[in-house]
Amino acid sequence: MTTQALVSEIQKKRSFLCIGLDVDVTKIPTHLLELEDPIFEFNKAIIDATHHLCVAYKPNIAFYEAYGLKGWTALQKTINYLNINHPEIFTIADAKRGDIGNTSSMYAKAFFEDLAFDSVTVAPYMGKDSIEPFLEFTEKHTIMLALTSNTGAFDFQTLTANGQPLYQSVLETSKEWKNAQNLMYVVGATKASYFAEIRNIVPDSFLLVPGVGAQGGSLEEVCKYGMNAQIGLLVNSSRGIIYASSGRDFAIKAAENAQVLQLEMAGLIPKDP
Amino acid sequence: MTTQALVSEIQKKRSFLCIGLDVDVTKIPTHLLELEDPIFEFNKAIIDATHHLCVAYKPNIAFYEAYGLKGWTALQKTINYLNINHPEIFTIADAKRGDIGNTSSMYAKAFFEDLAFDSVTVAPYMGKDSIEPFLEFTEKHTIMLALTSNTGAFDFQTLTANGQPLYQSVLETSKEWKNAQNLMYVVGATKASYFAEIRNIVPDSFLLVPGVGAQGGSLEEVCKYGMNAQIGLLVNSSRGIIYASSGRDFAIKAAENAQVLQLEMAGLIPKDP
Repeated sequence: MTTQALVSEIQKKRSFLCIGLDVDVTKIPTHLLELEDPIFEFNKAIIDATHHLCVAYKPNIAFYEAYGLKGWTALQKTINYLNINHPEIFTIADAKRGDIGNTSSMYAKAFFEDLAFDSVTVAPYMGKDSIEPFLEFTEKHTIMLALTSNTGAFDFQTLTANGQPLYQSVLETSKEWKNAQNLMYVVGATKASYFAEIRNIVPDSFLLVPGVGAQGGSLEEVCKYGMNAQIGLLVNSSRGIIYASSGRDFAIKAAENAQVLQLEMAGLIPKDP
Repeated sequence: MTTQALVSEIQKKRSFLCIGLDVDVTKIPTHLLELEDPIFEFNKAIIDATHHLCVAYKPNIAFYEAYGLKGWTALQKTINYLNINHPEIFTIADAKRGDIGNTSSMYAKAFFEDLAFDSVTVAPYMGKDSIEPFLEFTEKHTIMLALTSNTGAFDFQTLTANGQPLYQSVLETSKEWKNAQNLMYVVGATKASYFAEIRNIVPDSFLLVPGVGAQGGSLEEVCKYGMNAQIGLLVNSSRGIIYASSGRDFAIKAAENAQVLQLEMAGLIPKDP
């Protein structure tokens, strides 16, 4: 999926919402547990109820790997369901991978070829040759951690390295990598004031923004400092949407919560010129 | 598996060799491709031929995920084979994971509970709350990236942050985390001279050392600066052992190459007092 197609979809739906499919079987409605594949059935119901309100879905791979073969099967069925029924949706494998070159190539193959996601999240610690194998897939997008939304972000990401915070070095350095135009970045919403500095470094890149909702970030603040001419934001909400209810009405309640965010987003997106 | 059991095994076998099971089906002997599960059959043959020469096996998870469900099945069969037939072997899921707390908990569950590995590799970029969920498994070991063996290690890991290289900040900071005694660290062999500085910071921790062999590091240099009273090293070799031959003799040749390393190690391990 091209960036332009994503931007068009955002304008069309008046939404830059990404819904995180972080499915914990201990949190889903109990009536689903009788079905053969509760995780997939949960995802399918959430997708059916919310796909008109969001532009992206982001399964967090940890939640599938924790259930072994069954989890991997549910993940495969979920991405297939999205690719067949909603090819207009941008799909993100939230995997935070990164390894030496030949190993990163295998991860890229796993998420871009075998599972056919549009994008994958990666971690920068191992540097250029750990990320470029993902960037070789020029039809795909590689979303690199910059400044995350957890408290541990302040352990290393904000250390002053060569006169600037490490996350800014990460952004600056990555701009020089091959096919860097296919990079997007993870920037946590809990620190909206940082967005202005980040936009100085990467004015045109899409930012994937976790931390709105459960982690406490303000959507308006994020947009004030982070939005660019192409919108340039994908704001993720996971638990606040998918666990809106633990009853049989879970999908309806998820859609209601997604709509609250979508309507707020619609008010923040400038009218298409 | 306790650290003391690992140290005893090293003394008994006169080896601190870890064999990396990074299985690429395009590189394994073609006669295996006719079998139902070529990856597992390859691993089983390698394990059968080399388990007396090494103390650890390290499947790199990327190589399994790249083959989807089949890959995950082969990984599960491999770890089960090791746990049943060779409980004395230390097993490492080379996954380089790291995410916000509740997500890292799911990865910990995947590798420590579902797959029952003794240890998992993790990436430090997201800080304390991304690693502590792994450390909560006090019977297990968490192996954190410090200084890796690839060229990209010099992009961020060696940047000066708060007056010292970032990887040294990572080591120092991690010592304060809960259950830090269960941390081990990845330190690449390609920079043996760094080992002295690393030993000043973490004198007692085990170091997992890639980069001997294919990536060009010297075993003698690594031992000179990196060995401690408990040996404290697991030196990994992957391609140099498992792809020693692409013929029907692959397992025999793998054992020959493993033995070359084991004999060199035996000469570098002080006699048990």
